[in-house]
Amino acid sequence: MKRLNSIPKQDGFRMPGEFEKHSGTYIIWPERPDNWRLGGKPAQKTFAEVASVIGKYEPCTVIVSNYQYKNARGMLPPYVKVVEMSNDDSWVRDCGATFLVNDQGTLRGVDWTFNAWGGLVDGLYFPWDKDDMIAEKMCELEYADRYRLDDFILEGGSIHTDGDGTLMVTAECLLSEGRNSHLTKEQIEQTLKDYLNVEKVLWIPRGIYNDETNGHVDNMCNFVKPGEVVLAWTDDENDPQYERSKEAYDYLVNETDAKGRKLVVHKLLIPKTPILITKEESEGVDAVDGTLPRQEGDRMAASYVNYYTGNGFVAVPAFGDPHDELAVKKLQELYPDRTIESIPAREILLGGGNIHCITQQVPSRTIRK
Amino acid sequence: MKRLNSIPKQDGFRMPGEFEKHSGTYIIWPERPDNWRLGGKPAQKTFAEVASVIGKYEPCTVIVSNYQYKNARGMLPPYVKVVEMSNDDSWVRDCGATFLVNDQGTLRGVDWTFNAWGGLVDGLYFPWDKDDMIAEKMCELEYADRYRLDDFILEGGSIHTDGDGTLMVTAECLLSEGRNSHLTKEQIEQTLKDYLNVEKVLWIPRGIYNDETNGHVDNMCNFVKPGEVVLAWTDDENDPQYERSKEAYDYLVNETDAKGRKLVVHKLLIPKTPILITKEESEGVDAVDGTLPRQEGDRMAASYVNYYTGNGFVAVPAFGDPHDELAVKKLQELYPDRTIESIPAREILLGGGNIHCITQQVPSRTIRK
Repeated sequence: MKRLNSIPKQDGFRMPGEFEKHSGTYIIWPERPDNWRLGGKPAQKTFAEVASVIGKYEPCTVIVSNYQYKNARGMLPPYVKVVEMSNDDSWVRDCGATFLVNDQGTLRGVDWTFNAWGGLVDGLYFPWDKDDMIAEKMCELEYADRYRLDDFILEGGSIHTDGDGTLMVTAECLLSEGRNSHLTKEQIEQTLKDYLNVEKVLWIPRGIYNDETNGHVDNMCNFVKPGEVVLAWTDDENDPQYERSKEAYDYLVNETDAKGRKLVVHKLLIPKTPILITKEESEGVDAVDGTLPRQEGDRMAASYVNYYTGNGFVAVPAFGDPHDELAVKKLQELYPDRTIESIPAREILLGGGNIHCITQQVPSRTIRK
Repeated sequence: MKRLNSIPKQDGFRMPGEFEKHSGTYIIWPERPDNWRLGGKPAQKTFAEVASVIGKYEPCTVIVSNYQYKNARGMLPPYVKVVEMSNDDSWVRDCGATFLVNDQGTLRGVDWTFNAWGGLVDGLYFPWDKDDMIAEKMCELEYADRYRLDDFILEGGSIHTDGDGTLMVTAECLLSEGRNSHLTKEQIEQTLKDYLNVEKVLWIPRGIYNDETNGHVDNMCNFVKPGEVVLAWTDDENDPQYERSKEAYDYLVNETDAKGRKLVVHKLLIPKTPILITKEESEGVDAVDGTLPRQEGDRMAASYVNYYTGNGFVAVPAFGDPHDELAVKKLQELYPDRTIESIPAREILLGGGNIHCITQQVPSRTIRK
């Protein structure tokens, strides 16, 4: 497949909303023992569960290193496709391709530069060269030409689009020092507009408290559909999350989208009790210099907004918290035509993300704007 | 995808003839410096040329290790798809899946055990574990369930079928000590009948002189169509090949196929002058204990029968020999509806095989018997 040097917007390609029809989903198999406890074994069970659920609704492909190939194949159901691919970790939302479509049914990928969430400034591991090749390899598998940006750092989890001209990001992440500090905010915004084909970028100030991704928007806010968003929320004014959610709410209700619509903002409560890393969990992770440590008592960035929207379903994390049920109820109201699949996801959270972070959709070639 | 424990013949699956319609072709990128001279650089050029030619006629996928991914992608044309896959060497005909179809349009693979052409008896390198996983990974990519034989050694280059009930093999290879010496000839024949869905196996005694594969049939004889074969030949009675070709000819003209047809045997002359390894070529290969050495003056098993038949074309090796042209002319007569593509292939031959050995077809799901 080709590397393209043109601009998607000029070529007539756009990033669809995640809620638009998919041709499939990618996931990467977890294995690195300095991020996943007990050699990744508990996380692998959870990833297999996520893949099993998604695969019931749409074709699901699990990417796995050669070392774990047989094990992954054995743990996954037969309807999930397994493909070998070298990787540094298992966050395909962030290192994978961002797929675009045009109205003629052609699929293309955007291949952002990936630097492990901050490179040598505040990245989470080193090196990240294998991850930075995932997007290209996904494009090859999908027979999709590819826009590669050699000088623009971005992760898929730091953007959400309504597929209708509007993009959401957080300033905390997009303006972080470890990403594109060589560019102005205006230059960053222009790049997003050019490569995702949007007219307006909504800049939410910050993401979830203690989120190691510098506040990815996909843990904080999501589009239910054009004009309607769901925001992580807490009513507890003493929670460090309160101020972050409040400022996002105030920002969003005073904004309009690319089409001039006022936004409807739905609040989705975070877990009632902060989710902390236990001693046992911390001790199960290899302590390796250069990789973010997992320390006992650390508060994890648990949020139900980190759900994945696919063909006929929404997969939402469960934490064993009283608010698990509330989240399912709320999402069922917001997505009346989709089955809400609640999946225990503590093991994903322990690695630093959640269901949305470990998935990447391939939009259907047949969708039209 | 699933591993199946049933029998293809009972399930209604058969191996089509190579001349039947394909959905695509696989190739593996060469790189190991103890088999390919100069770090594989000259061979890579030739493999890229083969992929470029095939890709003009049908979808062509090149399998490549992570180490060579960027280089392969850069050397191959954009219409060729590149996928990462660990491998021990680049003979997808032999380690890859043998694909089967049924009349309902379902594709399945046979995943024979691969032991590098003889395992610890007279295999050509060690280890071969990555190669032995290629077939499974190809089946996953093709979304095809898979018949795995844990106790039966076979390479794809050691069989040819007419897709109509008849299989051709050489006794030299199929009965070699390093493969299935725990089985009788009858047991081997029954396994072939069961897994490829044929009624009759033609046992040509031997293959090409000095062929390191123990005389693979694909270097010696091929089906043009049911009832018609092409056989490597020399008129020089002093050539060690003569006796081998003569005994094969005598065997074939006295045999009938599964449908009771007498076989038409076309003779295809081998190169006029034996093709020998030069000093420079020999010195370009890393000498590694356990890998077959490439020594100056060794005669290589050059044969035009090692051609590949695809949608609308035949790709035949050229050696810079006066018979190159004869081979093209003969094949054009035998395949009047296909373009004959003659590709300089000395660099493939130096690695121990030729164009047929480095290709593996995926039959179209739509073909019917």
